[in-house]
Amino acid sequence: MVQIEQDILAKNNAYANGNRAHFDAHAVLALNVVSSPGSGKTTLLVATIERLKGLAPVAVIEGDQQTTNDAERIRATGAAAIQINTGKGCHLDAHMVGHAFDALHPENGAVLFIENVGNLVCPAAFDLGEAHRVVVLSVTEGEDKPIKYPDIFASADLVVLSKVDLLPHLDFDVDACVANARKVNPRIKVLKVSARTGEGLDGWIAWLQAARMMAFPDRMAVVKA
Amino acid sequence: MVQIEQDILAKNNAYANGNRAHFDAHAVLALNVVSSPGSGKTTLLVATIERLKGLAPVAVIEGDQQTTNDAERIRATGAAAIQINTGKGCHLDAHMVGHAFDALHPENGAVLFIENVGNLVCPAAFDLGEAHRVVVLSVTEGEDKPIKYPDIFASADLVVLSKVDLLPHLDFDVDACVANARKVNPRIKVLKVSARTGEGLDGWIAWLQAARMMAFPDRMAVVKA
Repeated sequence: MVQIEQDILAKNNAYANGNRAHFDAHAVLALNVVSSPGSGKTTLLVATIERLKGLAPVAVIEGDQQTTNDAERIRATGAAAIQINTGKGCHLDAHMVGHAFDALHPENGAVLFIENVGNLVCPAAFDLGEAHRVVVLSVTEGEDKPIKYPDIFASADLVVLSKVDLLPHLDFDVDACVANARKVNPRIKVLKVSARTGEGLDGWIAWLQAARMMAFPDRMAVVKA
Repeated sequence: MVQIEQDILAKNNAYANGNRAHFDAHAVLALNVVSSPGSGKTTLLVATIERLKGLAPVAVIEGDQQTTNDAERIRATGAAAIQINTGKGCHLDAHMVGHAFDALHPENGAVLFIENVGNLVCPAAFDLGEAHRVVVLSVTEGEDKPIKYPDIFASADLVVLSKVDLLPHLDFDVDACVANARKVNPRIKVLKVSARTGEGLDGWIAWLQAARMMAFPDRMAVVKA
């Protein structure tokens, strides 16, 4: 059983490294966006795409077990999107993402959001070739999620704490949540965001632009954005 | 023996997390700069400080077994610097860095370069609370260093390949070196730099500015830089 798991992950890692080289060659910043179901990932992406207009090209790979609802919501913004239906699968893998990337062929210099299947467990083990993993955690989910699902938080660079407009109506303790996230990942950053009110979106957009610059510091100047 | 090592590292990690919180509170971007002896770390820092004038405040913690030569070279640029002499010690630890930070008290929003003792082995295990670890590898050292000293490359975010002005006079294979670094750390970035000719410094400065923005996306606007 352990052997089979190692084989699967080794194969996935090889595809992930291939994806990474491919993304790099196109100066595409790929982000693996993970969360529980219903954290507001797609709503965040729709608001993000609006804010990035004129700043960076955007493309989106949507992962869900069924339906093309999310890809349709993204396409309504004008951004390119492709839906992967995993069927019984509980996570995206690097091989699927490689094919989707080829089909999407985003512009050079684009931000590629890979919206993973809503699941805080299985996606943790599967590198997709992303530059950064971003966990979207809604304040309706409770402060304990980082210590209950440590692998996904340990492997992420950023927590987007979403739906913060609801904080006045909840007992959610932001500081406790941040402390829990730091317990499993001392270097993780946390940004508080509400896609509904726009709170925190400036910081999120600044983070995205900085991530592009940091990934391609010597190429951004010549890439049309 | 293993137990003693674990105790030392656990203690160091606790200090490192304290440093990290302290750096964050001051919006200070801390970088742990590691390399072999003689890779050109101090020369790179001197050129970097010149370029950052007017863009960001800079402070430097210098680690060496003996002498205050490096701190003096840094102070000659006008930047604040403090020297830690480790005596027989082969690396900086988080406790030393915490004290040096208190003594330096850099401006809010500063870039803090922590120039570690020249050593590709021991510094790998000691988190100093840095946001990023940067390996300076000079092209005179050979392409095989990443696979000979994997721990330090695995824990770094960036390789600054230094002294690239010497490439015409060497058999150094840049692509092979990058491939070796990616073998131990698929996500590592490599920037080619010559502090002597200035080649690549623009990309390095862009990377630093992006790292500041990414670390503090919601605070950079209000921090005097």
